Amino acid sequence: MTVRGLHHVGMLVRDARATAERLRASLGLEVTAWEDYGPGLLRIAFIPIGGTLLELIEPLTDDGFNAAWLRERGEGVQHLAFQVDDIEAAIGALRARGVAMQHERPVRGAGNTLIAFLGARTVDGLLLELTQPLGPGP
Amino acid sequence: MTVRGLHHVGMLVRDARATAERLRASLGLEVTAWEDYGPGLLRIAFIPIGGTLLELIEPLTDDGFNAAWLRERGEGVQHLAFQVDDIEAAIGALRARGVAMQHERPVRGAGNTLIAFLGARTVDGLLLELTQPLGPGP
Repeated sequence: MTVRGLHHVGMLVRDARATAERLRASLGLEVTAWEDYGPGLLRIAFIPIGGTLLELIEPLTDDGFNAAWLRERGEGVQHLAFQVDDIEAAIGALRARGVAMQHERPVRGAGNTLIAFLGARTVDGLLLELTQPLGPGP
Repeated sequence: MTVRGLHHVGMLVRDARATAERLRASLGLEVTAWEDYGPGLLRIAFIPIGGTLLELIEPLTDDGFNAAWLRERGEGVQHLAFQVDDIEAAIGALRARGVAMQHERPVRGAGNTLIAFLGARTVDGLLLELTQPLGPGP
């Protein structure tokens, strides 16, 4: 399995539109795609930074994993997503190395991707994700 | 001011060697440079991921900003570093936009760089940094 690059940095925020505006007004960064994931579950913004993306993730309900993470840990980076060419092969390679997977089969992610989260934590406060783009990115 | 890309993702960890080994054994990621910053203050590892770097930061003393951050927030991503060509001009542009800076003059960073942290928080749990490489990276 070869990691091709950092597909995105996933950041949980309380108000994606406010955070995006602060990043635009300070650093000149621009949102290129908004997505209503679920729909109705997450408001997502993708902000290109060089060859990678910053993903702002705002939970739209009080239920679910992301809302609980935000309540418990506050705003900040939740996950790093590593780009692979073949996510099924990458999941197989990780399992063969004894790495627990949260997703043993890929699921649809935001931004036209297949994703799978690792179950094993590399550090306490961060999730790791595999991402296979299905077409041009946000 | 133009952000050229994401220079690095700065992650605070309790044991950089252990985290690096977990990332190598699972995702095949390799440390290309270790640095004793201070010296004696921080153990730093740089791990290239596509066109950006993951920076592991292990405080080597119980004093100081990074050790306090680790105690209060635990392990995880502490900052995102945005690459610029001219950090003095970028600091000036940010100040002209009313953005508070922690560093109003650049300071030497790890990995042969000049850096300056923004004082303003875009979100609660994350710092933003400007980075100007002074030569080839780690």
